[in-house]
Amino acid sequence: MFISGSLSVNGYKKVYEIMKIFLDCIPCFVRQALDSARLATDDEQIHEQVVREVLRLAADLDMSQSPPAIGQKIHRLIRGLIGNNDPYHELKQRFNRLAMRMCVELAEQVRVSESPLETAIRLAIAGNIIDLGVKTSIAESEIEKVIRDCLTADFDSQQVEEFRNAVGRAEKILYLADNAGEIVFDRLLIEQLPCEKITVVVKGSPVINDATIEDARFVGLTEMVEVIDNGSDGPGTIMETCSQSFRDRFEDADLVIAKGQGNYETLSDVNKNIYFLLKAKCPVIARDLGCEVGKMVLEKNKSFDDVADLVKEAE
Amino acid sequence: MFISGSLSVNGYKKVYEIMKIFLDCIPCFVRQALDSARLATDDEQIHEQVVREVLRLAADLDMSQSPPAIGQKIHRLIRGLIGNNDPYHELKQRFNRLAMRMCVELAEQVRVSESPLETAIRLAIAGNIIDLGVKTSIAESEIEKVIRDCLTADFDSQQVEEFRNAVGRAEKILYLADNAGEIVFDRLLIEQLPCEKITVVVKGSPVINDATIEDARFVGLTEMVEVIDNGSDGPGTIMETCSQSFRDRFEDADLVIAKGQGNYETLSDVNKNIYFLLKAKCPVIARDLGCEVGKMVLEKNKSFDDVADLVKEAE
Repeated sequence: MFISGSLSVNGYKKVYEIMKIFLDCIPCFVRQALDSARLATDDEQIHEQVVREVLRLAADLDMSQSPPAIGQKIHRLIRGLIGNNDPYHELKQRFNRLAMRMCVELAEQVRVSESPLETAIRLAIAGNIIDLGVKTSIAESEIEKVIRDCLTADFDSQQVEEFRNAVGRAEKILYLADNAGEIVFDRLLIEQLPCEKITVVVKGSPVINDATIEDARFVGLTEMVEVIDNGSDGPGTIMETCSQSFRDRFEDADLVIAKGQGNYETLSDVNKNIYFLLKAKCPVIARDLGCEVGKMVLEKNKSFDDVADLVKEAE
Repeated sequence: MFISGSLSVNGYKKVYEIMKIFLDCIPCFVRQALDSARLATDDEQIHEQVVREVLRLAADLDMSQSPPAIGQKIHRLIRGLIGNNDPYHELKQRFNRLAMRMCVELAEQVRVSESPLETAIRLAIAGNIIDLGVKTSIAESEIEKVIRDCLTADFDSQQVEEFRNAVGRAEKILYLADNAGEIVFDRLLIEQLPCEKITVVVKGSPVINDATIEDARFVGLTEMVEVIDNGSDGPGTIMETCSQSFRDRFEDADLVIAKGQGNYETLSDVNKNIYFLLKAKCPVIARDLGCEVGKMVLEKNKSFDDVADLVKEAE
């Protein structure tokens, strides 16, 4: 299920294992292509051309890449064909506004909660439903239902305490954001964390409905914490395509909080102190996590080897 | 949404309109390819090869064909690549057995119903959920839920009466079956109809989980009514690929009862006295029918022009 590779980051070699693309992902990529084309234009000839070109690209894909790495290539092709660098722009703004309306009341729920941190974590995970990579559209009623479910679903309190301790111990925390709209829910969680330790990371340029610096500004994150971009248009954290300055920050951070499926797919085999927060929305991810589709996930990175880290520090 | 074509059937020309393939269907075909390959073999290299070849075929598709016509080509390619003429064979048998177990009790429900015909129609439509073209798998619990829902859902009783009258008036009725397993539910309906007027039609050779003569024998349909095959491996009724003897029977019939999405897609624009019975399981079909996904459909063919038929008879 995983293939090993080695990648030079910051001058020293580290073994990276990359979640291999699953054949199951391909129908999803074709649907994403059609969604993007329809968002950009009503011209059905362009829709058809985009689908045909994506099918051709997919037929000759290198299947040893991670799903977000494939997604990055496919969405570059799509944006070129439709002549629109940000087909999801309007949708992203709509979800930002919707989430901001919703979060007024949710912030109050966090405030009066017996465990504000746990409630904020639950809401940050609920916000991960706003992912247009997985589905063509998400209704407001669906988001409301997911919020209700996430506030009451079974959840491992032990993991919450471990997360709280990890945050307490850390000095430099990177919070890798996922989607527009969702970042408003991330705000609720960040408000429960020591803001001075935290840098939020958004994408370098648009891909699907992933948040960029424009979204971070729009929802007021930039006034709360430092926000940087990763220099990449990958729907995840694809190191090879990120800027050197982001890689330096990643290397330097002693804790990473990674939101969403794309970050899980690209980072779950990196030897780094990471907590993944996501909703498992597709069978491929759920299978890899060993959980059911729909499950809330707060999980410490299994590939993190504390000992190796200590050895590295001692060198 | 529709394109016109003309097709010579039985020596005279008739205008056929073919439901054009929708780009939305393509992700579904890719998934079907993967399902078929996985059913046939555990060899992941073959899975990958099948997906790549189907993507190549799809990239150059003639998009003016009906979805079942495309499906026919794609499944021929798949069967060739995997070297297995009937990858769904075991699943078909499993669904036949499951449906036979379920229908013992359901037959009793039909018997004691205030309107046995309506109850049997509801159950025949419920059975249409057993469609592996739409989904990779269907759990027994899902079939049970669909049966419960179909027995109580809103339903147009007027349509049931019109259907009853149409059956009463007809002399030669063709019942176009859809899937294995589902044909056991069809039995419940056929038992409420004048059996001597009815000929059940199954596929000429295997495609997806569509019923063939083997299934009809297995569930005892052949002992109840005349059963013929249409000579085709299309997942619907694609006239050009059906045998001449089936076409003659189709021409000769004064009423056709057509089960499932594939028959709707291939026959809804044929000028013929047809009642369609199906569950609308995908957005493309639901949009065409003007209903919601999941809806039970008993619908008289809108393309049937009684007057034209009378003129033809007078000639």
